[in-house]
Amino acid sequence: MMNYTYGKGEYENWIVSETEFSPDTLGKCESIMYLGNGYMGLRSVTEEPYLKEVRNLFVNGTFNKFGEGEVTELPNLADVSRIDLRIDGERFSLEIGNTENYIRQLNLKEAELIRQFDWTSPKGKTLRFRFRRFVSLDNLHLIGMKMEIENGNEPVTISFDSGIDGRMTNSGTQHFLEGEKRIFDKRFIQLLQHTTESKIDIVMNAAHKVLVNDTELKNPLMNIDRRKIWLTFEAELAPGDKLEMEKLTTVYTSIDRPFSEKGTTLQKLREVALQDLKTSLDIGYDELFQKHVQAWKERVWNRYNLHIQTKDGFDLLSLRFAIYHLTAMAPAHDERMGIGAKALSGEGYKGHSFWDTEIFILPFFIYTNPRVARSLLTYRYLGLEGARKKAKENDYEGAMYPWEAAWPSDGEVTPVWGAVDIVTGKQTRIWSGYIEQHITADIAFAVYQYYQITGDQDFMDQYGYEMVFDTAKFWASRLEWNEEHGRYHINDVIGPDEYKEHVNNNAFTNYMAHFNMKLAINYYEELKRNHSPILNRLNEKLNLDKAYSLWLDRSEKIYLPEPNENFVIPQDDTYLQLKEIDLTKYKQSKKVGTLFLDYNLEQVNQMQVTKQADVLVLFYLLNQVEPFFNEEVKRANFHYYEPRTLHDSSLSLSTHAILANDLGDTQLAYSLFRRAAEIDLGPFMHSSDHGIHAASIGGIWQAAVCGFAGIRLEGDRLSIHPKLPDHWEELTFTIYWKDEPVSIKITKYRLTIRTKGEKEIPLTVFGERHVCQGELEISYLSK
Amino acid sequence: MMNYTYGKGEYENWIVSETEFSPDTLGKCESIMYLGNGYMGLRSVTEEPYLKEVRNLFVNGTFNKFGEGEVTELPNLADVSRIDLRIDGERFSLEIGNTENYIRQLNLKEAELIRQFDWTSPKGKTLRFRFRRFVSLDNLHLIGMKMEIENGNEPVTISFDSGIDGRMTNSGTQHFLEGEKRIFDKRFIQLLQHTTESKIDIVMNAAHKVLVNDTELKNPLMNIDRRKIWLTFEAELAPGDKLEMEKLTTVYTSIDRPFSEKGTTLQKLREVALQDLKTSLDIGYDELFQKHVQAWKERVWNRYNLHIQTKDGFDLLSLRFAIYHLTAMAPAHDERMGIGAKALSGEGYKGHSFWDTEIFILPFFIYTNPRVARSLLTYRYLGLEGARKKAKENDYEGAMYPWEAAWPSDGEVTPVWGAVDIVTGKQTRIWSGYIEQHITADIAFAVYQYYQITGDQDFMDQYGYEMVFDTAKFWASRLEWNEEHGRYHINDVIGPDEYKEHVNNNAFTNYMAHFNMKLAINYYEELKRNHSPILNRLNEKLNLDKAYSLWLDRSEKIYLPEPNENFVIPQDDTYLQLKEIDLTKYKQSKKVGTLFLDYNLEQVNQMQVTKQADVLVLFYLLNQVEPFFNEEVKRANFHYYEPRTLHDSSLSLSTHAILANDLGDTQLAYSLFRRAAEIDLGPFMHSSDHGIHAASIGGIWQAAVCGFAGIRLEGDRLSIHPKLPDHWEELTFTIYWKDEPVSIKITKYRLTIRTKGEKEIPLTVFGERHVCQGELEISYLSK
Repeated sequence: MMNYTYGKGEYENWIVSETEFSPDTLGKCESIMYLGNGYMGLRSVTEEPYLKEVRNLFVNGTFNKFGEGEVTELPNLADVSRIDLRIDGERFSLEIGNTENYIRQLNLKEAELIRQFDWTSPKGKTLRFRFRRFVSLDNLHLIGMKMEIENGNEPVTISFDSGIDGRMTNSGTQHFLEGEKRIFDKRFIQLLQHTTESKIDIVMNAAHKVLVNDTELKNPLMNIDRRKIWLTFEAELAPGDKLEMEKLTTVYTSIDRPFSEKGTTLQKLREVALQDLKTSLDIGYDELFQKHVQAWKERVWNRYNLHIQTKDGFDLLSLRFAIYHLTAMAPAHDERMGIGAKALSGEGYKGHSFWDTEIFILPFFIYTNPRVARSLLTYRYLGLEGARKKAKENDYEGAMYPWEAAWPSDGEVTPVWGAVDIVTGKQTRIWSGYIEQHITADIAFAVYQYYQITGDQDFMDQYGYEMVFDTAKFWASRLEWNEEHGRYHINDVIGPDEYKEHVNNNAFTNYMAHFNMKLAINYYEELKRNHSPILNRLNEKLNLDKAYSLWLDRSEKIYLPEPNENFVIPQDDTYLQLKEIDLTKYKQSKKVGTLFLDYNLEQVNQMQVTKQADVLVLFYLLNQVEPFFNEEVKRANFHYYEPRTLHDSSLSLSTHAILANDLGDTQLAYSLFRRAAEIDLGPFMHSSDHGIHAASIGGIWQAAVCGFAGIRLEGDRLSIHPKLPDHWEELTFTIYWKDEPVSIKITKYRLTIRTKGEKEIPLTVFGERHVCQGELEISYLSK
Repeated sequence: MMNYTYGKGEYENWIVSETEFSPDTLGKCESIMYLGNGYMGLRSVTEEPYLKEVRNLFVNGTFNKFGEGEVTELPNLADVSRIDLRIDGERFSLEIGNTENYIRQLNLKEAELIRQFDWTSPKGKTLRFRFRRFVSLDNLHLIGMKMEIENGNEPVTISFDSGIDGRMTNSGTQHFLEGEKRIFDKRFIQLLQHTTESKIDIVMNAAHKVLVNDTELKNPLMNIDRRKIWLTFEAELAPGDKLEMEKLTTVYTSIDRPFSEKGTTLQKLREVALQDLKTSLDIGYDELFQKHVQAWKERVWNRYNLHIQTKDGFDLLSLRFAIYHLTAMAPAHDERMGIGAKALSGEGYKGHSFWDTEIFILPFFIYTNPRVARSLLTYRYLGLEGARKKAKENDYEGAMYPWEAAWPSDGEVTPVWGAVDIVTGKQTRIWSGYIEQHITADIAFAVYQYYQITGDQDFMDQYGYEMVFDTAKFWASRLEWNEEHGRYHINDVIGPDEYKEHVNNNAFTNYMAHFNMKLAINYYEELKRNHSPILNRLNEKLNLDKAYSLWLDRSEKIYLPEPNENFVIPQDDTYLQLKEIDLTKYKQSKKVGTLFLDYNLEQVNQMQVTKQADVLVLFYLLNQVEPFFNEEVKRANFHYYEPRTLHDSSLSLSTHAILANDLGDTQLAYSLFRRAAEIDLGPFMHSSDHGIHAASIGGIWQAAVCGFAGIRLEGDRLSIHPKLPDHWEELTFTIYWKDEPVSIKITKYRLTIRTKGEKEIPLTVFGERHVCQGELEISYLSK
């Protein structure tokens, strides 16, 4: 079904394709081929409808809460993608008639979705169809669609309905009050919608140009119904005739940057949106598409410049797939917005941001596109409002970041009820919003990492220090003094391993909290030494002097679980004493979460079974600060925890891949990398139904660049320690160190580093210190 | 496709059936075969889903308004009818594989939906399916479903998902906040929902019993997702095995009579609902169904006792169809509820009540089931609250009934925007809620008719007089003095013909307003003479003495359009002067509303074209009071207006049928009756997509009983003037006169009337006065 080798010539390893239509596995291509530009995301649903489709259009930041018992989420906007076609009066569907030469493809290079096939109707008329679609990176508000139908040897009547359909919901939840519906000049159709609670206006305009053999088909039938506007076109095609339709759509909202700030009226917004559509229609699909292709070339492919020479094109394809999606998901245009766990590709996780962003996605941007990384971190700075609210609600100090975040001021938005509990028949209570607290330290870590790699002092002065100080204040207030051990503990939390709830002293949480406070101490002292005006400002706002002395005292007394006699760090106070069960069945299952067909969460809590990497992530992160954990400890923990880990989170595999490579097992690392890459891209037809796994996609890139290329932050230095998989001949890419592009080429025998030479880049290569200014080449035997 | 002769033996002319499955015309059978018991209505959607289905479950009275820009409507409840079947892992659908012996039938006698067919999967496995379903008339809260699958000669795996799906909307509008979702004992699933604005709690429970060859299949897979709970069953069937599933559902709401009055807690409501389901499951489908059949027999078929002896079974079928639907639609259990224009069969008209009830539906109940008629009129009495509100908002006195009514206290709920205006590209403004005012007099007329026929003095004392007085007060305040003509005019209205907006002196409106005031005068004087305590009470409440003198004065001076030199009564001040256009194209069209593909309403307003009977309805109504209009006038107007009438309202044909019969053209009358009967029942596959035409269904009964049997109120007397269609040998039915059953048998040569003999029934038969006490037989040559 899925095909990865369709691209030839200049498109070799650029095309993800599906070669057979299957109405029961639509979610796969809808998600992984979704089109996005950070402003909006359009699921790649087929034009003609099918029963199991999920038709989604999301615009970043337009969060709305339906009412009591629900949490805020990204609403599913009105649909423009659906076209109801009739051939000789009968509904067109690939479920009937005969289809040949079918292919649906996402061209990653040009960010275009193309679907084509020859179809013979039940009445025996053969037609050739070609559908094309893009969501413009050049004009963030624009969706372009094109439909071409070539007639075969019989006369045929084609008619179709196309318009704007506001009957869409989020699994039944309707976020919009219906606004005005209009058709201008029998061509430009306009639907207004208004979110019920957040009061955001959405303006959607669509226009069609339909040609039959270059003659425009005018005066369609006009229709307005509840939440819906559409036009009906009808044409008689003689043998060999060609029908061509361009449909262009513009999407604007009242929170769009220029409008929201100037307090633009709805009327003005409508005019701008309509004018944009009129201008675009004059330009036409082909030229609009070329501008879009150009934007992808300049802003994406030329910038990241990543290549692998290898026999196995899938690896290169999967990295391009990752970069494609990382671009499509990132709201680079607006720092009030984050990245949802399913990006803009589906309803899953409601568009909320998790630690996924900071730990799995952000490194890609920090290393390769710091401007976007800064925007994403600024989103967290703006989120301090919600984080302070959450801390206060929980009787803590400082900023306690929400486990799930939506609009920055919203605070905690994690839902409270989940899937069925097979024992009680109730929904399972979700505790993450209350006690999965490591997110706060994860964000502080991301600030540290961003600052170390980019050197963006302006960011730190404006945002970064304040974030680190206020998160450290949270931790200082969060610690619980344990008299017996004479230590500060952190009790009743969930660590990254969410199969252990209400645990005490989760190693990840304690170490990261400790790191967070230490970082605050360092920054405080550094500012005191060198930038006292900034410290004074923040001191006034956050009462830092008092906080500083608490940090000093408490960070020394926090309990940090040590490796035991087998070098294993206890994941929490009880994990190592829990009963062990045979996990073979679940480890071998192709579906995630199968454990819960046999146990409820309360029971799982009592077993040595882990959802995803927990202690291992800690090694990966903190060794970027200083060498906290040596290889012996890493190895022991990898071998202890991995067999107990179900990888039921898509975040797990890439971490394991990196760690495996660190430990020298490149073959295992490669197989884990492949598994991570296959979560969305692979042949499993249901894994992406609710949307792509954004963190996993960041993980693909990290597994390659931080894993195989061994790029890692090491305190003040950039560490490079390549270990390529056997069949990779060469890996090249560009990263940025303190704003300077660093081009890296890795072959089996040689590492070549090139910079513009404006700065000295402090490097550690294979553990030895170097400085690169201009070019550095290091030869080695394959290690 | 549709078949009317499937019923044999005891089911002859009792079965409406569909003999071929067509996925593109699903709405037809969904609507006309819908199941209802006045409490709720369930669209007869197939168990397995199809793209064009409309899956609806409505509970009467549960109105909710989503928000700004929408009006209150009956919300579409969670669905229990859908079953997702997989055969050997593949989705079951009649669009694939091979189907034989297909039949879907509504058994009117037993109010059961049955669907059966033999289906061979694409892999070649043949299975026999049988689905049955009823909405109990015995227990108004109960829905019963049964699925039987007999396996053929190959082993097969069958699995299916079935549960409660709360993702349903009204064309995208979600009326419910999601409440708790539970599964008790791995069997009883419960979904709570709460309307967003009217704050009504809905409690739905469902349970399954699945047997394979009499062995129960237990421990289904349990699932809870957003707004959805379901169980997954799986069974391996050997050749010849039989799988049988019973699914029972109970539906309760917090406005249900006993609970809403006692202020029952939600917890209590849940317990009652669940207990009802448990009890029902113990009883089982077959016995529950028998109780339901018994209720239909006793309460419906035995009571109405209607029969036609004729070669053309369709006529009998269509009258049974009418009685079936009149029963299914009427909320006989609760006088706070009315009848929606589409009954409980679809979203059309949002469950709102129009004049359709009083003029087209109510006569059936007045004549044959006065208790239900009283309930429906009490609904209007309770609606005085909203009617007074509307009058006040419009600066009038008394009670101005809403054109569209929902919950009694809501007042006017007519939407303001309609279909596209092809000239402006905007939505067409709907003025009915403001200026279609005849509804107020129509309700007064219904009170008059009910009182005359039933003699229900208690109703009058409690409700009826007050309704007539307060509506008359409205009209007195509504009249506009025209100095030039020295008459009271009624300007700027819409009459029954809605293709004429903002007209002055619509004949129907003026005459009916006049009637309304005259009736008030009569009642006032009668009460003064004989029941002064009642008058005193109402006088205190409504200041009647002053009103009475206004009525006396103004009713004399109201302008009542007289027949012109051609005996034609001008429909309004300008109609007869408007331009005439060739209507052939539109008269011949099988679709309604085609005029608006060429003109907008503003243009239609300027032409002599009529949507539906206007002046003609007036003749029908007012001649029941006194002989206002003679045959010459009736004939002239029939022949003037009918050619200008598009019958774009389903209310039009039955009126014309009755009038044609009055004028002696029984052949024309019969063809109009047939057309009226065919609106829903006939072979047009899209006419009922949005729901059945409740008024038209009342009209079928009226065309037969008031038309062919010539039953008519005539002041204080019951008039009978039969003229049977040629091929009707005999027509029998029972009506009630002042609470006494009157059995009527009409043949070509003889009219037989039988009563219990307790009262003298004053009759007019063929224009001659009679009295019947016991039995009256009149022989005649066919007239």
